[in-house]
Amino acid sequence: MNKELSLLLDLYELTMGQGYYNYRRDTRASFDLFVRGLPKNRSYLVACGLEDILDYVKNLRFSETDIRYLKSQNLFTPEFLNYLKKFRFTGDIWAMPEGTVFFPDEPVVRITANISEAQILESYLLNTINLPSMIASKASRIVTQGQGKQLFDFSLRRNHGAQASLMVTRSSYIAGFDGTSNVLAAKLFGIKPSGTMAHSFIMSFKEEIDSFLAYANTFPDKTILLVDTYNTKKGIANALTMGLYMKEKRNKLFGIRLDSGDIAYWSKYARQELDRAGLNFVKIFATGNLDEFKIKALLEKEAPVDSFGVGTNMGASIDAPSLDVIYKLCEVTDEEGEFQPVMKLSKAKRTLPGRKQVFRLRDKNGKYRGDIIALEKERIKGKALLVKVVSNGKIIYRNPTLDKIRSRLKYQLSNFPKQLLAIDASYRYPLKLSPQLNRLKNKLSRRLEKRQ
Amino acid sequence: MNKELSLLLDLYELTMGQGYYNYRRDTRASFDLFVRGLPKNRSYLVACGLEDILDYVKNLRFSETDIRYLKSQNLFTPEFLNYLKKFRFTGDIWAMPEGTVFFPDEPVVRITANISEAQILESYLLNTINLPSMIASKASRIVTQGQGKQLFDFSLRRNHGAQASLMVTRSSYIAGFDGTSNVLAAKLFGIKPSGTMAHSFIMSFKEEIDSFLAYANTFPDKTILLVDTYNTKKGIANALTMGLYMKEKRNKLFGIRLDSGDIAYWSKYARQELDRAGLNFVKIFATGNLDEFKIKALLEKEAPVDSFGVGTNMGASIDAPSLDVIYKLCEVTDEEGEFQPVMKLSKAKRTLPGRKQVFRLRDKNGKYRGDIIALEKERIKGKALLVKVVSNGKIIYRNPTLDKIRSRLKYQLSNFPKQLLAIDASYRYPLKLSPQLNRLKNKLSRRLEKRQ
Repeated sequence: MNKELSLLLDLYELTMGQGYYNYRRDTRASFDLFVRGLPKNRSYLVACGLEDILDYVKNLRFSETDIRYLKSQNLFTPEFLNYLKKFRFTGDIWAMPEGTVFFPDEPVVRITANISEAQILESYLLNTINLPSMIASKASRIVTQGQGKQLFDFSLRRNHGAQASLMVTRSSYIAGFDGTSNVLAAKLFGIKPSGTMAHSFIMSFKEEIDSFLAYANTFPDKTILLVDTYNTKKGIANALTMGLYMKEKRNKLFGIRLDSGDIAYWSKYARQELDRAGLNFVKIFATGNLDEFKIKALLEKEAPVDSFGVGTNMGASIDAPSLDVIYKLCEVTDEEGEFQPVMKLSKAKRTLPGRKQVFRLRDKNGKYRGDIIALEKERIKGKALLVKVVSNGKIIYRNPTLDKIRSRLKYQLSNFPKQLLAIDASYRYPLKLSPQLNRLKNKLSRRLEKRQ
Repeated sequence: MNKELSLLLDLYELTMGQGYYNYRRDTRASFDLFVRGLPKNRSYLVACGLEDILDYVKNLRFSETDIRYLKSQNLFTPEFLNYLKKFRFTGDIWAMPEGTVFFPDEPVVRITANISEAQILESYLLNTINLPSMIASKASRIVTQGQGKQLFDFSLRRNHGAQASLMVTRSSYIAGFDGTSNVLAAKLFGIKPSGTMAHSFIMSFKEEIDSFLAYANTFPDKTILLVDTYNTKKGIANALTMGLYMKEKRNKLFGIRLDSGDIAYWSKYARQELDRAGLNFVKIFATGNLDEFKIKALLEKEAPVDSFGVGTNMGASIDAPSLDVIYKLCEVTDEEGEFQPVMKLSKAKRTLPGRKQVFRLRDKNGKYRGDIIALEKERIKGKALLVKVVSNGKIIYRNPTLDKIRSRLKYQLSNFPKQLLAIDASYRYPLKLSPQLNRLKNKLSRRLEKRQ
């Protein structure tokens, strides 16, 4: 993380920090970061963002200018500002590794630390889990419907800023996308950059075929011709001519791109024409406001598309542009320094008390049959999804490669009930609380309700 | 701009660049950046993002490592890589100043430059206009419905990354928001940071009232108590007690916050109780999934809310998380070096040819009565909205202060027909093409259609 981002937090993290400093200085606490409810069109979510979080935790310091700025707000005591000056995160963090499939109410990240330290992390952690997990979940749906066709992230122009575009490329790659048009993202993450041509290139020549020829001569084996600038039928005919010209010169037209109109119709037409002309190696790319529903419809119509370029719908997660990520206190030490479970009662926003772990259970065939949210110390026969990544402020987790994360997700998805991947997202994977957690929750609710 | 962002572009900008380099080296061209169609719930848009664009244009260079990376892709000739090494933007840019109200098809930014240079700018410019303009437009709707109540940006946790959060705060301030919880954004843009307390603070104490007392003692005149952690009625009663306690100590409870449940009901109840207790100065804050529709409904029910904290719905522009921003070639030089207008014909995606200007017309009373998109050289009696900001690669525009931009928007909105601000966004502001532009469009369409 850029150290200049340390003040990227909600003011109340610091005002509460001042309150904790005055009244709760040695209090320790645990917080759960989780998602409340599935968004539209989702039956599962994909954990992403941990690498950034670890980088942030490692580098979190308040600079002299930060402190000066905070001082100018007339909210904080000199002692607390001094505490911030020396601030380091010294607690523990448990998290689901990136690429882990998760569900609502399951802690994705769990912090145990001095309560001020844990509180100061809140805003950045929520922000940093929200976008990549949301994008990976959306992109994963597209990958499922893509049925093995190549998928490219073409969303740079509609992402929410430059940094978002990098996170989107990374997340879509984790979900199974094959490449991206975003050169910087490709460079940073070691992903293949990919691109075709824009209408402007064609329009800058007097005749469409002249622009095709210029491109073909420039990229003898990587040319993808965009055929819908003026008239798709004519554009396909011109691409055909160019394919034959290139073949004659012992080059190879790589593909054509359809960006508008009836993609099913035109891809079939183009495929037929290309094959008939002996250009069966020329690939067909489709773009233009695609999402998982449109890709599914195209493949159901047997549109012979080889590669899909997906932009806005994936890169801004148009149907669900935010996850309901929250960060809630689940235990806190009492005067004797003993951790006591806590929960929030407010209507429809109850939280689960205690320090928890998530267990994923398998059936006899090794397939996932349900998750159990349990108290940390319970012994449950299943894989514990939260792993310790920070111990006493020290990062003890080694970030896997992107390909490893991608494989993890792929492996996991292959082990869930198949309905989980259905496009209508109606399937609900079995999710339970352990009897102990359930008992604690009920006991605590009753106690709190009685007290009110 | 961070110089490390120079490769933040779609690969095809560079492959086309190579094609232009080979076949169109001295060609000059103009591109329009505009929005195709209004998104859901919008009757107008607000131009934002220019400051970032100018910063980008000024600093755009390809570093040694950028060049090395591009070389490794085996796509580019040594000559072209050498061209990139020396790359500077040397063209002209016209743009609508930030805070300008605009409509679909109106160029918001217009570039005239060597065609490669103009092409290389495409992705970053689109990305950089999209988010802030979208957010400013959404936030502006909320400001209208807020009817002068205070509005705070609480969206950091759900923005698409850290950088997006900064852009969101800036855009919402331009639209008329009063402050933000985002401390870094507040610091960078000179906006007032604002905050209350979270449920965790309350839950970290044994009794709600203990947490209230701790906060009250910490912030004798800035305490805002969150009252819905366990039971809203009891929370309000505790806040009341605290208000009286603070009054007794000659301090002042600043406010209470409602974050769930029936805000209209509870705000009325709390107002009544507070007033009855002589605490009429205590403000009521409302948060919790608010947007312009909910704020309107609350104010129609005469909910006595003083300040609204708006998060996700504004900060991720939930109802319209992307604008259909595009960047289209509108003229290009021919062999004689003369600019010739061009356009794209493909179905439902036609573009407007020629170098254009947008004129905003007033009626006798000085109110805006319609916009005309015209050719640049036409004389139209109206305010020309595009101003020259870059001349031969030199920035000639001085960025106004944020407050100036905010005032510009406020002034403009007060001069449009009132229906433009209606929440249903059904009003369509009159938008015409000039006769000359219309003639050119028709002539060119016919010519292009005949050629196909």
